[in-house]
Amino acid sequence: MATETKQVLINGSWRNAELADGKTFQATNPNTNEPLPAVFPVSAWSDCDAALEAAAAAATELRRIPREKIAAFLKDYADRIEAAADTLVEAAFNETGLARSPRLGGVELPRTSNQLRLAAAATVQGDWASAVIDTASGIRSCFESLGPICVFGPNNFPFAFNSVAGGDFAAAIAAGNPVIAKANSSHPETTRLLAEQAFAAAQANGLPAATVQLIYRTGHADGERMVSDPRCGATGYTGSRSAGLALKAAADRSGKPIYLELSSVNPVAITPAALQQRGAEIADEFMTSVLMGTGQFCTNPGMVLLIEDPATETFVSTVTERFAAAPAGTLLSPAVATSLSKSVQILVDAGAERLAGDGKAETDRCAVSNTLLKCSAEQFLTDPETFQTEAFGNASLLVVAKDLDQATSVLDQLEGNLTGCLYTATDDSDEAAYDQLAFALTPRVGRLLNDKMPTGVAVSPAMNHGGPFPATGHPGFTAVGIPAAISRFAKLTSYDNVRDSRLPALLANKNPTGSTWRYVDGNWQQGDVAG
Amino acid sequence: MATETKQVLINGSWRNAELADGKTFQATNPNTNEPLPAVFPVSAWSDCDAALEAAAAAATELRRIPREKIAAFLKDYADRIEAAADTLVEAAFNETGLARSPRLGGVELPRTSNQLRLAAAATVQGDWASAVIDTASGIRSCFESLGPICVFGPNNFPFAFNSVAGGDFAAAIAAGNPVIAKANSSHPETTRLLAEQAFAAAQANGLPAATVQLIYRTGHADGERMVSDPRCGATGYTGSRSAGLALKAAADRSGKPIYLELSSVNPVAITPAALQQRGAEIADEFMTSVLMGTGQFCTNPGMVLLIEDPATETFVSTVTERFAAAPAGTLLSPAVATSLSKSVQILVDAGAERLAGDGKAETDRCAVSNTLLKCSAEQFLTDPETFQTEAFGNASLLVVAKDLDQATSVLDQLEGNLTGCLYTATDDSDEAAYDQLAFALTPRVGRLLNDKMPTGVAVSPAMNHGGPFPATGHPGFTAVGIPAAISRFAKLTSYDNVRDSRLPALLANKNPTGSTWRYVDGNWQQGDVAG
Repeated sequence: MATETKQVLINGSWRNAELADGKTFQATNPNTNEPLPAVFPVSAWSDCDAALEAAAAAATELRRIPREKIAAFLKDYADRIEAAADTLVEAAFNETGLARSPRLGGVELPRTSNQLRLAAAATVQGDWASAVIDTASGIRSCFESLGPICVFGPNNFPFAFNSVAGGDFAAAIAAGNPVIAKANSSHPETTRLLAEQAFAAAQANGLPAATVQLIYRTGHADGERMVSDPRCGATGYTGSRSAGLALKAAADRSGKPIYLELSSVNPVAITPAALQQRGAEIADEFMTSVLMGTGQFCTNPGMVLLIEDPATETFVSTVTERFAAAPAGTLLSPAVATSLSKSVQILVDAGAERLAGDGKAETDRCAVSNTLLKCSAEQFLTDPETFQTEAFGNASLLVVAKDLDQATSVLDQLEGNLTGCLYTATDDSDEAAYDQLAFALTPRVGRLLNDKMPTGVAVSPAMNHGGPFPATGHPGFTAVGIPAAISRFAKLTSYDNVRDSRLPALLANKNPTGSTWRYVDGNWQQGDVAG
Repeated sequence: MATETKQVLINGSWRNAELADGKTFQATNPNTNEPLPAVFPVSAWSDCDAALEAAAAAATELRRIPREKIAAFLKDYADRIEAAADTLVEAAFNETGLARSPRLGGVELPRTSNQLRLAAAATVQGDWASAVIDTASGIRSCFESLGPICVFGPNNFPFAFNSVAGGDFAAAIAAGNPVIAKANSSHPETTRLLAEQAFAAAQANGLPAATVQLIYRTGHADGERMVSDPRCGATGYTGSRSAGLALKAAADRSGKPIYLELSSVNPVAITPAALQQRGAEIADEFMTSVLMGTGQFCTNPGMVLLIEDPATETFVSTVTERFAAAPAGTLLSPAVATSLSKSVQILVDAGAERLAGDGKAETDRCAVSNTLLKCSAEQFLTDPETFQTEAFGNASLLVVAKDLDQATSVLDQLEGNLTGCLYTATDDSDEAAYDQLAFALTPRVGRLLNDKMPTGVAVSPAMNHGGPFPATGHPGFTAVGIPAAISRFAKLTSYDNVRDSRLPALLANKNPTGSTWRYVDGNWQQGDVAG
């Protein structure tokens, strides 16, 4: 059995893992609920230790390597992902149940290679490093590489947020760091295949052997030890709140930065005026957003805040019928199905009414019927914490308020969320309601949307895929968007009275690219600085 | 007695504190070791709770108040501090023993009012908010106010880092937040006088009553409860490592940002070539830096790394004589004197040789003789943690290495520091040594200096007064420097598909000042954006 177990990638070698108590695991095909054949190791601490040791050495080497070489690696990796698309899509389909097309092959894989190319361009261009030059005082500063980055990817994006290919990976590498990837246990084969491409690209471009390493799974205690290890520079984590907070506690204790993207119910508030004006259209938008990908997006609209009105009643009836009529998609894993059923039950036990869906998990595949719940704002306000339980998957909770003030009170009780949406009338008739709702909602979300559903996270420099705790661990950082996501994995360094010849290229008098933006004496400019 | 106890400032009223177990305290005059007459309260949780409640309401109000009004407050406050300079300097002299002139009146007070004016300009100008506009996707982002900020100031800058007047205060207000100041217990009267000016300025400029609040001291548990309270937005702390880490643990548990500036030994490495070339000059610079302000700066050069050479021997003799000959300055408080003696003893017990100073505290004032210690790099490497004990005050440790490689090994063992300095030959003869030392030192410090001592922290946009843990809690933030220090106390918010009329002024099509820098479609610009 041991010889068939897949190998970890540590310090430039695919080798047998040292198993934690002899443990291995297999992923499940969510379309059949059957285990997939490949067997993966649960690594002992010795694997983590070896990876950290190699990564620390690689981090030092990478500091001497020109940015162009790192960019070449990222571009080559993007090309290789595209060349291996068929194999990758098949593996991801088997492990996640997400549609081969368009989702995996047509949308997510191109997004992933695009992110890598954007990161390649950013690492050379250098805006991410926020170079600041104060000629009067002779002080210059920029962001620089931090050290080995541990990346824990989520279950719901086998490519675009994969620990060895996704946004955190691209950002960590673009900042000049090696990555230790911890595969998500629900798609280890997809991750292994990606790591093969990443490693081949790293080798082909002459990067240190340990620039990319892969471990599939560890015991919880070893994961916590890894993110708090002195050799770790920082960690990027996307996943469940409980596991994320355990890692955060460990990292915090040793002063290691950890960037989390945790749960979020992504409230959507819709005014009666909006529904009077275009209720059917909004129902369409909501249906597309909430059930797409079986609702398994970090920004899925899990809570819709409405205000009593005939148009609201029509909206509720419409979406109820459509939830019941739509086929239930496949969920990512048995764990997701179980968790969804459990969360729905928590909401029902708290008093939410089932409008659609029995909340039961199917047995021959990972699926739960589309679930639409409803409660009054009055109910919500009696136990706001419970009514904010995230039901990750194809479910949503409608909260109906008596009036605008009560709706505002609901918003005032919200935890930190990734997104918040407001739908109002498209003319100016609804501005007072908008102002009141937006004022309450904005401080509680990372991204405020108007007349637009929250799913779909553009890779834009203006994107904030972040938000106040507990949506993330810090309200000032985004996990998506270049260049902003890159500087998370960096340290700020000032150079004080350092000669021009000794400065990092980004801070030298001569602009290293001729087009890097630098904040010189209070103004952003792309030119050289007088010597 | 209770009626004579000084009053706290909560929700716009100077009122009697609710005492924690009836406790009060007095500061000590470090020049006499006698308690000062004023009696200050140790507040019970009820005071903290009242301050948080009022601050949360003020934070909401402040979101509606034009930036110009906040700027007017900061400028008015700066004026009032200058008008009250004599009283403030006298109080600070009595409480800290720092010289009235030039230190308190000629240097620190003007620095403080200057910081407030810089913050005033920054809050209107808006560069601190890093506005990003992506016209293609319709997404725009910027930093915005976060909520009530708790500020804990240090003992060593009664004005410039004061919790109710210093850098963290100015940054928190500039970001649009109210401040709950926790006075440093060694200079409560100075802080009270500053808070009187701050409150008068806030009233005169129509800011919410709870924009500025003051508590003098709380029990440790209540301090921890305050920084982790849901109503707290974030915390700024400057002070001892032990108290800072206790607050950090509490804030981390509830996902609240906390910015720490803790201990640092600020290593200075000096090559033989530098000493051969200008040893006497470097000795002068070192003496000025290490004993200025009785060595009580966060960036005091507490460790000097040397390499065996005749020029090194001369340097060691010179500074030894000068340490012994220089009069010992007064320390800030009995606690600082005790702590310094204790730290010196730890270093001596570990094997450091006393070159100058007996390490004993004087009894009629707060003072310890100037202390110069020496150890070999070999000794250092046997117990790097102990040899990095910070001896805050007029003390420094010389570490002498056999050669460049051994010196590099010492640097490799350093914890995170605020600063690191390298002195090398001023011609190009020393570049290989520089390169080797700088490569090892840079990742371990927030600011790398060349041929310059670390004391003196310019308020520059390129300043990083920060550094890797345990010098601070996060390697990406600076406590000094505008605009960078401001965004610590802010949240990132994206606006997605939001109409121009509803956007924050900084993100609207029209540039709000005509000169605010905004990153528009990948380029920094000051113009308007096409609608």
